Amino acid sequence: MTNLNQMKCEACDANAKLLSPSEIESLMQEVGDWSLIQDSGTQKLRRVFHTQNYVESISLTNAIAQLAETINHHPLIVVEYSTVTVEWWSHKINGLHRNDFIMAAKTSDLF
Amino acid sequence: MTNLNQMKCEACDANAKLLSPSEIESLMQEVGDWSLIQDSGTQKLRRVFHTQNYVESISLTNAIAQLAETINHHPLIVVEYSTVTVEWWSHKINGLHRNDFIMAAKTSDLF
Repeated sequence: MTNLNQMKCEACDANAKLLSPSEIESLMQEVGDWSLIQDSGTQKLRRVFHTQNYVESISLTNAIAQLAETINHHPLIVVEYSTVTVEWWSHKINGLHRNDFIMAAKTSDLF
Repeated sequence: MTNLNQMKCEACDANAKLLSPSEIESLMQEVGDWSLIQDSGTQKLRRVFHTQNYVESISLTNAIAQLAETINHHPLIVVEYSTVTVEWWSHKINGLHRNDFIMAAKTSDLF
């Protein structure tokens, strides 16, 4: 099995299929630090990264943003003094695509 | 009257007094683009800035972070593709201090 963090994340269009519950269950095992959440009916991946201070929070935020820009897939990031909360999902299909798991794994690698 | 965005924001300690309702009402008139919100019993100032894209969102986030670091008072920032949501409040007193209004005004100036 190829590790998710080594996989290429391709742009997702509105015709892409949402992952099935069994696919999600399987992929969740590969991103153990991430939680599966429901936000107003949309499934998302969320992880809270704990940092030492605001400078470290901003530094991580910039690293994630740079990663996001390279593949044109962008997460929600909540920056606080000693936490950075990241949520990945695919806006165009209103839920989770394999891309989101790839990006979650790559985000964890940045930390 | 001195404009808020010209005022100096001083570090706030746990003994600082929360603003009174009438003080808040008066200061809200000086930061017209900000909303007064209640978040789990804590009063905060919130503004959603609309941007052109993620790069602009990150750029604004960095500018706010730099401002925050200079006076050691840090907001919550939610970064999304075309919005940056900022919340100011004083953690140590669990509510609003004059500092938060000064920082809100200075944040608006960055946009």
